[in-house]
Amino acid sequence: MKYEPVSLLGKFAKFTDQFRPKVVAQMNDVQFKLTRVQGEFVWHAHEDTDETFLVLDGELTIEFRDGSVQLRAGDLFVVPKGQEHRPRATEECKIMLIEPAGTVNTGNADRGQLTAPDDVWI
Amino acid sequence: MKYEPVSLLGKFAKFTDQFRPKVVAQMNDVQFKLTRVQGEFVWHAHEDTDETFLVLDGELTIEFRDGSVQLRAGDLFVVPKGQEHRPRATEECKIMLIEPAGTVNTGNADRGQLTAPDDVWI
Repeated sequence: MKYEPVSLLGKFAKFTDQFRPKVVAQMNDVQFKLTRVQGEFVWHAHEDTDETFLVLDGELTIEFRDGSVQLRAGDLFVVPKGQEHRPRATEECKIMLIEPAGTVNTGNADRGQLTAPDDVWI
Repeated sequence: MKYEPVSLLGKFAKFTDQFRPKVVAQMNDVQFKLTRVQGEFVWHAHEDTDETFLVLDGELTIEFRDGSVQLRAGDLFVVPKGQEHRPRATEECKIMLIEPAGTVNTGNADRGQLTAPDDVWI
């Protein structure tokens, strides 16, 4: 049987849109999603789950109401369930989100076109 | 409040032992574990869960009974629940395992000292 690795950078070569997470793998009910981030996202929280950010390229800032964290390539951060946060990046950065399938990118914020389609595989 | 990123390479600087996963973060019931791999591990399966491998540095081979997959830095692979596998690496490589808390490294194989202590944080 033929087994194929998931090349994260190879997957990034297949899309250019930002803030639109693409699923590349799933472990049990947890999905691995790649997205490009540039500019400022919307304040939101995920009421039912923690959310993991892993920066693969570039720099990401995650703002909280009482502080912020700066992530560079190779840095990981878990945003606790229910905690309001706002990701932003000056230059485009490439990140992997790790979170349960069905987690919507804008969480509890209803933001129309910023809300990405769920469960899009690439 | 002060928020700190988890620097994966920074965490690797804190240990040198191999095949001894160290937990660096947790999302819901899923843990992120770093380990150094060199040589050949033992054939085993995890009967209750998929298991995710992400190679951070070096090259890892995961053998299956009917094939194998070769992972380089930036490659990810999910071993399905119940599937027998054996990781190995010629040169030392650095990987992150992503799997439910409580997953034992040797799975269903009872291998004495190869079985690492569970839930060791670094």
